This record gives sequence, C-alpha cells and structure tokens, in this order.
Amino acid sequence: MTNSPPTPDYPALLKRIAVASGPAADQGQVADYIPALARVPADRFGMALQTLSGSLHRQGDADEPFSIQSISKIFTLTLAMGLVGEDLWRRVGREPSGNPFNSLVQLEREHGIPRNPFINAGALNVADLLVSRLDRPAAALRELVSELCGESVHIDAEVAASERAASDRNAALAHFMKSFGNLDNDVDDVLDFYVQHCALALSCAQLARATAYLAHDGLCPRTGRRILDPRQARRLNAIMLTCGTYDAAGDFAFEVGLPCKSGVGGGIVAVAPGQLTAAVWSPALGPSGNSVAGQQALERLVAETGLSVF
Amino acid sequence: MTNSPPTPDYPALLKRIAVASGPAADQGQVADYIPALARVPADRFGMALQTLSGSLHRQGDADEPFSIQSISKIFTLTLAMGLVGEDLWRRVGREPSGNPFNSLVQLEREHGIPRNPFINAGALNVADLLVSRLDRPAAALRELVSELCGESVHIDAEVAASERAASDRNAALAHFMKSFGNLDNDVDDVLDFYVQHCALALSCAQLARATAYLAHDGLCPRTGRRILDPRQARRLNAIMLTCGTYDAAGDFAFEVGLPCKSGVGGGIVAVAPGQLTAAVWSPALGPSGNSVAGQQALERLVAETGLSVF
Amino acid sequence: MTNSPPTPDYPALLKRIAVASGPAADQGQVADYIPALARVPADRFGMALQTLSGSLHRQGDADEPFSIQSISKIFTLTLAMGLVGEDLWRRVGREPSGNPFNSLVQLEREHGIPRNPFINAGALNVADLLVSRLDRPAAALRELVSELCGESVHIDAEVAASERAASDRNAALAHFMKSFGNLDNDVDDVLDFYVQHCALALSCAQLARATAYLAHDGLCPRTGRRILDPRQARRLNAIMLTCGTYDAAGDFAFEVGLPCKSGVGGGIVAVAPGQLTAAVWSPALGPSGNSVAGQQALERLVAETGLSVF
Amino acid sequence: MTNSPPTPDYPALLKRIAVASGPAADQGQVADYIPALARVPADRFGMALQTLSGSLHRQGDADEPFSIQSISKIFTLTLAMGLVGEDLWRRVGREPSGNPFNSLVQLEREHGIPRNPFINAGALNVADLLVSRLDRPAAALRELVSELCGESVHIDAEVAASERAASDRNAALAHFMKSFGNLDNDVDDVLDFYVQHCALALSCAQLARATAYLAHDGLCPRTGRRILDPRQARRLNAIMLTCGTYDAAGDFAFEVGLPCKSGVGGGIVAVAPGQLTAAVWSPALGPSGNSVAGQQALERLVAETGLSVF
Repeated sequence: MTNSPPTPDYPALLKRIAVASGPAADQGQVADYIPALARVPADRFGMALQTLSGSLHRQGDADEPFSIQSISKIFTLTLAMGLVGEDLWRRVGREPSGNPFNSLVQLEREHGIPRNPFINAGALNVADLLVSRLDRPAAALRELVSELCGESVHIDAEVAASERAASDRNAALAHFMKSFGNLDNDVDDVLDFYVQHCALALSCAQLARATAYLAHDGLCPRTGRRILDPRQARRLNAIMLTCGTYDAAGDFAFEVGLPCKSGVGGGIVAVAPGQLTAAVWSPALGPSGNSVAGQQALERLVAETGLSVF
Repeated sequence: MTNSPPTPDYPALLKRIAVASGPAADQGQVADYIPALARVPADRFGMALQTLSGSLHRQGDADEPFSIQSISKIFTLTLAMGLVGEDLWRRVGREPSGNPFNSLVQLEREHGIPRNPFINAGALNVADLLVSRLDRPAAALRELVSELCGESVHIDAEVAASERAASDRNAALAHFMKSFGNLDNDVDDVLDFYVQHCALALSCAQLARATAYLAHDGLCPRTGRRILDPRQARRLNAIMLTCGTYDAAGDFAFEVGLPCKSGVGGGIVAVAPGQLTAAVWSPALGPSGNSVAGQQALERLVAETGLSVF
Repeated sequence: MTNSPPTPDYPALLKRIAVASGPAADQGQVADYIPALARVPADRFGMALQTLSGSLHRQGDADEPFSIQSISKIFTLTLAMGLVGEDLWRRVGREPSGNPFNSLVQLEREHGIPRNPFINAGALNVADLLVSRLDRPAAALRELVSELCGESVHIDAEVAASERAASDRNAALAHFMKSFGNLDNDVDDVLDFYVQHCALALSCAQLARATAYLAHDGLCPRTGRRILDPRQARRLNAIMLTCGTYDAAGDFAFEVGLPCKSGVGGGIVAVAPGQLTAAVWSPALGPSGNSVAGQQALERLVAETGLSVF
Repeated sequence: MTNSPPTPDYPALLKRIAVASGPAADQGQVADYIPALARVPADRFGMALQTLSGSLHRQGDADEPFSIQSISKIFTLTLAMGLVGEDLWRRVGREPSGNPFNSLVQLEREHGIPRNPFINAGALNVADLLVSRLDRPAAALRELVSELCGESVHIDAEVAASERAASDRNAALAHFMKSFGNLDNDVDDVLDFYVQHCALALSCAQLARATAYLAHDGLCPRTGRRILDPRQARRLNAIMLTCGTYDAAGDFAFEVGLPCKSGVGGGIVAVAPGQLTAAVWSPALGPSGNSVAGQQALERLVAETGLSVF
C-alpha cells in the first residue's frame, strides 16, 4: 500500500489482539511427537513487533523462548543464499508444494528435487549444502541468529536429541534425495545438523528482531550489516509467502497477506516489507500445523493496520 | 515498499523493455491446440501500463486485441465474489495446486473441491456459479469488462467455438466435480459459458485499464465505482500471486514479486497495489504455459522500478 | 492341479456353502447409488455350478435374475477380442491397477490408456470399440449372452436409465480418454451402450452357463460353437484373475485362486479351467465392492474341492 | 488344464527355445547399477526344467551361477510364512502394486503397509521379520536354499557389498516404514540382510530344483520334507502370478500364464503346479526390468506345452 496509514498505537493494538486471539489457544492441538514439545502448556500466547523505526513492542509471553522449529529454515536458507548463490536453485525449487509438507510423492515425481526450501526435503537439502560448506554449521547458525537479535540464543539439546530419535521420515527423505544424487553428505550428518537448527529456542522478541533484515531489504537494522542483497531478501519473502506455512500458504496469503513462516512449536513470524516484523507464539496447532491463535493474531494485526502487501 | 522511488519515465522504460524482451518472443511456442491461436504471429509484443495517477503508457502492439484466455478468470472471480460472498470458498479452495493446471489427480484426492479458482476446475466451478445466478452470464461479463476499460470489448466467436470443440478435458473436470456434487448446472451449459469468457479479446491497453481496480483497493479509478471491497481486492491479488501463473507461480513470485495472471494467448497482467497495473502480450509460451517475453518484460519492469510487493 | 480329486457331491457341497456363507449376507452393504440396486434385499443368496461334464447345480436363489453390472465386461471384452484382435491392446492395457477401480489418477499418468479392460475406463474404451464396429451393440451383446446361456436374457431398462443419470464419473473418464485421442465416438453414445450392458439381468444359473466357454478353452460347451480361440480364452482368464475383482484381485488370487469377475450387483463368477464355472450372488458388498457372502462361498468351494489354479 | 498333454520331449523343446530366444539377449540392457552385475555378458542364456517326475533338463548356461536378486524374495517369504503365520499379512499386503517396484507413493498413501512382499518395501519388511526371529538370517536362508537344491549355494560378497553401498532408495523405504511403526529393527541391520539374500548366486539348474516345492503343494520332491503347507504354497504361487514380475505381472499372466518371479540379474523362475518348475537366465533386461530372452523362452515353453494355469 502506498498510502500507509499513520503509525498505529501498537501497544494498545497488541493488547486487543491478545484479548481476542488468546482464547484460540485451546482450539488446536500442541505438537506431541516429542515429549519436549508435548509438555508445553497450550495456553501460552506471546507476540512481539519490531518496527523499522526501531521500536520493539511486546505482549504476553513475548520473552519466553520456544522451539522455533521450521522457522529456522529462514536462517539456513539465508546462510545458503549467501554461500551458494544461484546454484542453490538447481537443487531446490521454489514452487508451492500443494501437498503435505513432508510428502515423498512429489519428490519422487520430480526426481529428487524438492519443490522449495521450506518443505522438509528442501530444508534437508539446504542443510546438506551448509554441512558441505561450513565446519561447524550449527555453531555458525547460532552465531548468525545471535548477532541478528543481539542476544546469545541457544539450541535446546533435549529437543534436538528427541527429534533425532524420531527422524525416520526425514531420514527417508534424505536417503531418497541421495538416491537421486541430490544430497552430498552422509545422511546421519545432515540429520544431526537439521535437528539442531530446528531446536533453536528463541522468544518472540528475539525472533522479531532476528528477522528484521527481511523487512529492510536484507540489511540488519540493528547492526547495519548486510545479510542479504535486496533482491535476495525480496526473493526470500516471496518464498515465505508462497511456501512458508505448510499447505495453508494460500490461506495465509488470502487472510494475512504477508510473508510468513511457521513452525510446529507454535511460532509464526510475519514480514511487512519496509514496515516491521511480527513474531507470535501460541503452541496449539490447527489441522495445517500452524498455530491457531498465531494465525488469528496476524489476521487481526493486518485487519487493523492494513499491512497486507496486496 | 514504503519509500516508493520517484515516478520513473515510463515511456522510456517501456521502450527499453521492448528492446530487451522483444527478441524473447521466439524462445517459446505459440499455443496451437486451436487454429485461431496457432496462427497468431509469434513476434508480436505489446505492453501497457495504467498508473493510478491516471496515465496510460503504451508500447508496441499495445492496442491489438488478443485472446485473453485464462486472464478472464480474474473477471469471473470478481463477479462471483460479488454475487456469492464467502460461500464461494466452500466450493473452491485458494491453495496453490503444485500440479499442472488441469490435473485431475488433486481433484480426486480432494473430493471434487478444486484447489483454487484459477486452475481449470476452479474456473469451471466459478463459471457454474455464474450460470446459476445470471441470466446471460457471457453478456454480463462482457458488460463488466467493457465498463472497466471504458470501451466495448467483444468475445471472439471463432475462438469460443474452437475451444468448445476441443473441451474434452474440461468436460472431464466438470463431470468429475458434478460426480462429487460440486457442480449444479448441465456440464454443456457451463462449458458454453467457460469458452466464451476465455475467448474475450482485449488489447494490452484495455487490459491494463480493466484491471486497475485491483491496484486501487477494489475501486475502478476510471468511473469511481466500487467493484470489490478492499478486502476482496487484496484477496484476489493474493490468489493471483500464489496461483495466477500455472505451475510457475512460485517462480513469478520469486522473480517478479507482483500478483500476476497469465493466459495461453500470451497475455499477462500484473498488479502493483497502490501504483499501477501492467499488461503485456507476446504469444510465444514457455514450458509452464506463460509468455516468455511477457515474463521477461515484467521482470525488467520490476527490476527497474522496485515495484515488487516484497 | 493335475491329480484332480474325484468329482465331489456338488449338491451337498452347495448346501454346506449356503449354510456357512448365507449369514455373511448381512456383513456388507447393498450398493445404493441407484434405487433399483438399493432396494434388492440383502439376504438373498444364490449359487450355481456348471461343470464341463454337463451338470448344472443350483442352490438358493440361483434362478433369480440380478443386475450383473461389471460382470458384463467379460462379454464385451469377448466381443472386442473377436472383432478387434491384437490392436485392442494398443488402446487398453492388461496390468492390475493398484487403485480404486474408477480412479482418474492412473489414467492421467498413463496418457489416457486405461490399465486393463475391467476398470471402468477400460470397459468404456471397449464399449467405444464396439460402438464403432456394431450397428446395435446392446442387441448384439444380448444375443451373444442369450446364445451362451441358452435362454433369452434381458437388459433392465430401469437400471440402465438410473445408471445413465448417475454417470458423471464415467463421463469424466470417457471425456478424459477422448482428450488423449483414445476414444472415437461421442461420449453420450458410449455411455448409452455402457449402462445397457451393465444392466444385463442374469440368474446365477444363466451366468454359470454363459461363462462356461472360459473353462473350456473358448468353446461353448452347450452349442459347440467357438467363442474365443484357446489362447484368447486363457488370456481372458488371466485378466480376470489379475484384474477381475476391483482392488481385491490379489486377495482373491490368494484366497480363492481362480479367475473371478465381480459386479456391484453382488454377483461373482469364477472359472476353474477344464472343470467348471461357478456363479454366486448375494447383494451385500464388502469395502472392496465385492459380495461378502459370494467371496466366502467361493473360498469354501475351493477349500473343499482343491479347484485353485495354483 | 485337466487333460495334460503327453509329456513333451523336453530336451528337444529346450533346444528350440534356445535357438529362438537366444538372440533376444541383445534386445535389452544388462542391469548396470552395480559393477558386478554390469560386467555380466549380455549374450548368456541358460535354462533348466525340473519335473515332478524327477527329471532335470538343462540347456545352455544352465549350470552357471548368477545373482538371483529379487528371486530370493521367494525364499525369504517362504521362511517368513513358516515363522510368522497369518500375522505376516497385517504388515504386508498381497495386492499388485500398479506402480514401479520401488515406488514410495503407494507406501505413503497406504500408511507404511507395503502392497505385497515382492515390491522392495514388502521384501524389506519380510527381511525385518526374519532379522527379528533368526539369529543369523543370512545363514539360515543359505541353508534352506542349499537344502532345497541339494548343493551348497553361496552369497556373492562383492554383489552384497556393492548393493549395500547403493541402497539409499531401500534405506528410504525402510526408514519410511519405520516412521509408520511398520519396521522393528535398525534400518542398517535390515539392509545388511536384504542385500545378502539378494546376492545369492544360483544356477538355473539349482534354481529349478530349489523351487520345486512350489509345484508340489509345498513338499520338497528331493527330500520329501514339507516346506510349506499346501495352502501356503498355493498362496505363494498366487502372489508370484499377481506380483512376481514388477509392473509386468499382468503381461506375464496374459502371455505366460504361470506364477513367475524375476530378478534384475536376468533370472526368472516359473512354476507349473503339479508339473514342473522352469528357471531361465539371460542378463539383458527389458523396460519392465525382466529378462527379455527369459520372458520369450517362457512364452514359448507354455505355447508348446499348454502349461498355462488358465
């Protein structure tokens, strides 16, 4: 929108959102495939907005770290875009999948080239690229995210270990890509890194700060360091919008209208280019694997601010 | 982008685009499934920009009418959004398909509910809704488009008749939806209307004007009449971005970054919300069914103006 | 088996089967997609054996005509094998489908060539071949079947009309094949014939007699007329065994071990080459669309006689 | 067929088959996914018949051991039928797959239950069952096969090692089943056993003898020991006929009409119940992965002897 509305009273808005969307926390199901996620109380709700003008607004449990899970794929893709360049797109596509996020069907039909970097197969492929190019990829990722949000973040070792023990489906995806020649490292090494980056624990406040470069044409507003060039940043936003929320990406584009990335830990981050980033967390997930309260909160944010890119 | 760059010199830009992208016209294949499309010369190239400030810029064959084909689905969807309201979305989804545009596979898996209104099954379903609600749906559509572009437009009867004779695959889709109870009218009646709206003939200049309401929150800038409410307009743009260019929607989002809708006649229309609409036409199609020169022209337009929504 | 056991006491055996399998009639669901099938009482059970030595054994409702439905595909295939020869197999495959019998998915992947003549798409293709080659295909079919069983059989006009009115899915299949160039006639004409042959009404006794040529290397034991040459007869039996009972063909081969063809009217016919044919009817269908009591009856028949081809 | 023709002059018949089908050896491609298979000369042709009356007939390279590959799945299934009983069929189906033999698609749709024990996923599942129940499954299998053919057979260690190194796709299948809870052991252990049984090296003469129990209602004709009960033997034959030759099972049933099992080493074994077993070997494979000359040889065998079960 060219005629941006006057800056809203964000603290008041966040309160209204929390009142309206908080109860949604009990409309879904907390992810229960590993104990460390299953025991997170369903009634948590946190939200944070980081504006490009430098304000950080918090609401509810905005400072409680949670497992960001698939949201971490933003950061691995950012690293890979910098290290690999255009060749990245020979190994991974950028089309919506139109299928459940970990489907093998499409991978088979498309000869081991995952549809996009945010489905599990694509993220495993990105992880493989980073394992090839970085000595200690998990440490490198943690450093990047720590720098971006200005605080040291950690990887939840229990979550990583549990996910590693339950990674047969991801092992299947990785072996399958390897059978097509589209994975270079040992599957075990790739899985080790993959579960670590998924186990990054960040709060909404940290996540909103850490992704602010995506709203700022690739420049970290906190440090001024260039993370991605403007074209890369726009492209990453495009992939978030078309592929960032599992098989509900069309629904998010329709109802929220901002690039978003979600995780099964109940977090969602949204990017309003040129304006702000929003991070919201509430663990109960709807049928598509996205936080129910989180999606409602973002819909309300957009409805009240007109922040939609459309 | 909030900080819009100063208004560019559009006539000069369009000339540069035509010089650079014109040659691409011979990199693809003109659609040849019906004679009326097959005989269109591959070397045509036209482009038009309609700014919200009221300027219309033309380049090349910008005033030559062409068969807009699937671009017409914008207008049928617009009519249906007005007539049917939210119930529309019980019959048609809004998720990218991740499959060729006329695939039956997904329709079977999803029990006759087409993934979105721009794949053929979805557009047939929208056509069915209009056949139920309008006495003369083709005339109503022609009136709407004529009003939007301020000139009387026509339906190419030869194209419509040829498409009707070659519509077995669409007949299969329609009968298939009907077998799931998701089509109300006789398949023949739905196909009759469907081929007519696909056979609308518009020039780039007409198309850029006719779609300007999508860049203007649903308000026709020429007449001031409200065509869609702002939320509906943003939603339609969202569907264009995620589903508007067949199985290359992710690629368009990545490379162009604007809501676009293409047709096998070689036209593409792009919406830059709050700024302008662009229509480009060049008949040679790439593997994904989109105009090769048209996509290149839009990429250049965005690269030089920063118009991307991301 | 080479060492055939001594001829069993078939009347006593049929009685035992009826006592044991009759109650199974209420374990399934009568087909209810058209009223004429839905109102058939679920508790009917008939069975007939026609031995090559000339005996016909009846049990229960063995003389009550029922809608043979897909079992008629044996007879249309027989006609087509005679009229078309090897070219038939350019248009229709002979592989098991591994999918529900009316799936469009496989048809799409395999470019409009149906997997075998017993799935609906394949039978529609066979019907198309007969429509091309016979002036009055339904009459020709009725004549063939009447000759085979030595009694005039009829087509149930009510069933045919009801099926015709509910044939959107078959229309989809036919239009889809036509879009691939694998159907020659008007879809309406093909469907008209298709629903007529499915509406043939035969009793178990008639059906066992009518199929006896399949146990007799293609020679009708009643008239001595050659219906198929021996190789064609064996091939048709092979297709029955691998494809004759919807998605339970493997289960039938495993548990019954004879070429069988079933229909949603609740009939099943089984061929013991060189020995006999068996026809059984009980309207309640299991999840795979085959008669529950019918399958049990055939399992018992084979268990007590060792008639399995394996 | 009840009226078996008089016993043919098998040595003369085998010579005619070799003359006619030998040249077919160069119509296909030798499997080249591992070096040990790739270097087998394409022009080899061997065949052996083992009659139940006790004669063994040899032709060509009938005594040269070759890698039996998937034919070994007959023997693992035989072991599992004995050790596991009916529970086996809760973990593995017995329906034809209708898809390439190592497809993941169907496995996904059917929640990790492989369609039948002869597709790779099914054979891996059978291998898992044997790993659970046998201390040294490879040794047990080698003992069984050695006993059946009356000679010590060996496992080709080079082939096993090469297959192990190239087993990413099978690893994907195994991890995928494990993710559905349908695999009990470590994937590595299952793969270790799987590649060993596929690397069994037998000659045609050995293979014809080793499978004779399948033509003899489960009784080993050489030793008189019961290997399977009659019902199990017939069931195994049924699975061979419907699922034994990859995606050409329908074609084999149609053209050969005997239960067959093939391997990518170029071997095929056929069972004529009550009569004989035939083993043929010629390394060049057709598009479906079956030996070209082998299939032709079996077709000729059946055409001249009428051995078809139909």
